[in-house]
Amino acid sequence: MNSFEKGSLTGIKVLDMTRVLSGPYCGMMLADMGADVIKLEMPGYGDDSRHYGPFRKDEEGNDVSAYFSSINRNKRSVTLNLKKPEAQEIFKRLAAGVDIVIENFRPGTMKKMGIDYDVIREINPRIIYASISGFGQNGPYAGRAAYDGIVQAMGGVMSITGPKGGKPVKVGTSIGDIIAGMFCAYGILAAYINLQKTGKGQYVDVAMLDCQVAILENAISRYLASGKIPHPTGNTHTSIFPFETFETATADIMIAAGNNSLWKKLCAVLDMPELGEDVRFAENPDRDRNHDEMFELLSERLRLRDGEEWVKLLDEAGVPCSLINTMDRVLENEQLKARSMFIDIEHPGVGTEKLIGIPIKMGDTPGSIRKAAPDLGEDTRKVLREYAGLTDSEMDALESEGVI
Amino acid sequence: MNSFEKGSLTGIKVLDMTRVLSGPYCGMMLADMGADVIKLEMPGYGDDSRHYGPFRKDEEGNDVSAYFSSINRNKRSVTLNLKKPEAQEIFKRLAAGVDIVIENFRPGTMKKMGIDYDVIREINPRIIYASISGFGQNGPYAGRAAYDGIVQAMGGVMSITGPKGGKPVKVGTSIGDIIAGMFCAYGILAAYINLQKTGKGQYVDVAMLDCQVAILENAISRYLASGKIPHPTGNTHTSIFPFETFETATADIMIAAGNNSLWKKLCAVLDMPELGEDVRFAENPDRDRNHDEMFELLSERLRLRDGEEWVKLLDEAGVPCSLINTMDRVLENEQLKARSMFIDIEHPGVGTEKLIGIPIKMGDTPGSIRKAAPDLGEDTRKVLREYAGLTDSEMDALESEGVI
Repeated sequence: MNSFEKGSLTGIKVLDMTRVLSGPYCGMMLADMGADVIKLEMPGYGDDSRHYGPFRKDEEGNDVSAYFSSINRNKRSVTLNLKKPEAQEIFKRLAAGVDIVIENFRPGTMKKMGIDYDVIREINPRIIYASISGFGQNGPYAGRAAYDGIVQAMGGVMSITGPKGGKPVKVGTSIGDIIAGMFCAYGILAAYINLQKTGKGQYVDVAMLDCQVAILENAISRYLASGKIPHPTGNTHTSIFPFETFETATADIMIAAGNNSLWKKLCAVLDMPELGEDVRFAENPDRDRNHDEMFELLSERLRLRDGEEWVKLLDEAGVPCSLINTMDRVLENEQLKARSMFIDIEHPGVGTEKLIGIPIKMGDTPGSIRKAAPDLGEDTRKVLREYAGLTDSEMDALESEGVI
Repeated sequence: MNSFEKGSLTGIKVLDMTRVLSGPYCGMMLADMGADVIKLEMPGYGDDSRHYGPFRKDEEGNDVSAYFSSINRNKRSVTLNLKKPEAQEIFKRLAAGVDIVIENFRPGTMKKMGIDYDVIREINPRIIYASISGFGQNGPYAGRAAYDGIVQAMGGVMSITGPKGGKPVKVGTSIGDIIAGMFCAYGILAAYINLQKTGKGQYVDVAMLDCQVAILENAISRYLASGKIPHPTGNTHTSIFPFETFETATADIMIAAGNNSLWKKLCAVLDMPELGEDVRFAENPDRDRNHDEMFELLSERLRLRDGEEWVKLLDEAGVPCSLINTMDRVLENEQLKARSMFIDIEHPGVGTEKLIGIPIKMGDTPGSIRKAAPDLGEDTRKVLREYAGLTDSEMDALESEGVI
C-alpha cells in the first residue's frame, strides 16, 4: 500500500519513467509530499542507478544500491519494456488514469516509442507531461547527451567556483541534475494548479543547462553591470570582511563577521580587543582595503587553538561561524537532528537504512518517508491489474515475452 | 498594472516581506508564474540588496542595484515600517485578502511584531504562511544568524567541493540561499494544492541548513554505506573515466566519455585510434585502474591545440564536452539564446536591462517577465487603497509619520 491520507499531494498519480538523478529527484519530491509515484523500469535491469555502488546485500545476497535507495523512497516500481509495442499500449492505458508523466530520455525518444506528449494528450487532455533533458527540447544542442559535469562547465557555475586565483572546480554534488529536478517539480505543481482551474493539462520542458544559468545570481548581474568577468574567489565574500575560512591548530573554520558589532565581538573572543578599536579595521570598507593585514593578524591568533574550541567560543559570543563539516559531522549535527533531517527506515530484506529527511516542514500536511525504495518490479502486478485492467494470465504471458 | 492572464499562478496574491536572497528568489519564482507578489519594504531604505553594488544610474542620478533588479522583477513594492503599530494593523488588513505570506526574518521577529502565523491564521484561516531562516524555527540553533557561506560549510557541500587533494571551497553561487528559496516555493505550491482541496492554509518552515543537506546526494549515501568520508575530488567523476577537465593550448575543457563507444570516438578525434584499441583502456574499470597513464596520454595530445578547436571537433563526433564558460561566454551561448534564457527588458528611467530567463518552459501557461524590479514604494498608494481601503489623506498622514 502506498496510501497517505494527510500529504499535500495525496491522491495525485504520477508515471515516472526517469533514470539516475534529475528525474528521480523530481519524482521523490512529489512522492515525499504524498503523490503516488509509479516508477516504470526496464524488466531485468531497471534504473541505471540500481547498478551504482556502494551496495548493501539483501537476505538473498543480491546487491542493493545505497545510491538508488537514497532517491527512490516512497515510490512503487513497475517493469515495462517500452521498446515493445505491447508495453506502449499498456503505457497508454496507464497514462489515461494518471495526472502527471515525467521522463528524462534524450529528446525524441518518447516520440520514437509513440508515447510523446502529442499522443498522450489525445488520450488524456488533463495530463501534465514533464520532460527533463540536458539542453531542452529545442535549439541546436537539443539532441546532445548531457552529464552533470558538462552542464556545470557550460552553464558558468564552475567558472566562479574554486580556490582564489586557482583553476575552476565543479560543485561536489550534482547540482546540474538536482536543480533541474527541483525546477521541474515546481513547474509540475504550477501546472497542476492551472489544471485545477482550467481542466487542461500541458507540457513542461526543463533543461539542465537553463537551470544552471538560473542560479548564477550576482555573478551574471555583476558581469553585466561592470563588464568584469568573475573568476573563482575561494571562500571569501565579495563584499563582507572578514567572511572567509581560517586555519586553526586543527581544522579550518568559516567565520562571517557581517557588521561592526560582530567584528568587535570576534576580536573580543580572540582576546584582541585592541584590534576591534583599530582604525585600520573600523568599518567594512577599511577591512576590505586592509584585508591582508587583518587576515594575517586573525590567522596568527586562530592557529593557536583547536577549530572546535574556537567554534564553541564564537558561537557563545554570537559570531556566525562553522567548521567545514564532513559527512560524519553532518550526520551528528544537533540542529539537523532536531529538525528530523535523518530518518531511519526499514528496508525489507536489507535492514535499517538512514535517509535524508524532507527539508520542507509543513504544519498541517507534512511530507513523510513512508517506505524504502522499491525492489525492481515489486508493484508490477498490483498496478497493472488496478490501472490497466490486466488479468494474471495476461500478465504471465507478457512476462514470458519480456514485456513486463 | 501587474495583471497576467495566462500565468499558472495568475490570481494568487502574495505578501513578500523578505530581504536579500532566499526569500526574494522564492518570491520571484511565484511572480514569474503569474502571481501578484507585493514586496513590503522599510520606508526610505527598502530591501538591503537595493544597496548592493554594482549600480546603474537612473535619470535622476540615483543608484539602482543590478543585483536587486536581477531577483525582484515582476514584483510590486509597498513601503511599510512594520515596527510601528499602525503598520502592523495595515499588515493584518492586507493579510486578510491574500493567499500567501513569505518572510525571512530571524525566528521570533514576526511574533515580536505581533504578526506571526498564529495571529494571521485567526484573521485568514486560508493563509499559507512561509518562513525561510538559516536554521529553522526550532532546535538549538534556531535563534542564530546565518549566512550562505556558513550553511555551505556546516551542511557538508563545501567538504566535497574543491581541487583533488586540496582544501574545500564553497560553491561560487549562493546555493545556501537559492536552494532554500526553491524548496520554499515548491512547499508553498504543495500547500496551495492542499488549500484548494481542504480550504485550509498552513505554516511552511524552511531552513537553509536543512536544504543544503537535502542536496548532498551520493556523498552521504556513499559515506553511510562505506564509512569512508568523502573529500574534494576536483573535476573528476567518481565512477566514469575519462570524465574530467583537461588542459589545452588555451582554455581547459571538460570531457565526458561515458561509455566505450564514446571512448573510441574520443580517441579518434584526438587522432589516436590505437589508444581506443589499447587493452589497458578497453573497459571503464581498465580506464579507472590505469587512469593516470590515460590522463597523461590524452593531456599531451590535447595541449597541442586550442580548447575551442577541440570542442568543435568533439561536438561533431558526439563526444560530450564543454569549455569552462565564463559569464561572457554563457551570455553568448547559442543554446541558451535559443531557449530564451536572456531577456531584455525596459527598466523605467534606467534603460534596457538583461535578465536571466525562466528555466521552466510551459506549453500552455508559460511564465513571463512582465516588468522590471520596482522602485522603492512604487505601488504603495495603489495597493493600500485597493487592499487595505486607505484614503489618500490617511496615507498622507501615515507617510508623514514614517509608517509608509
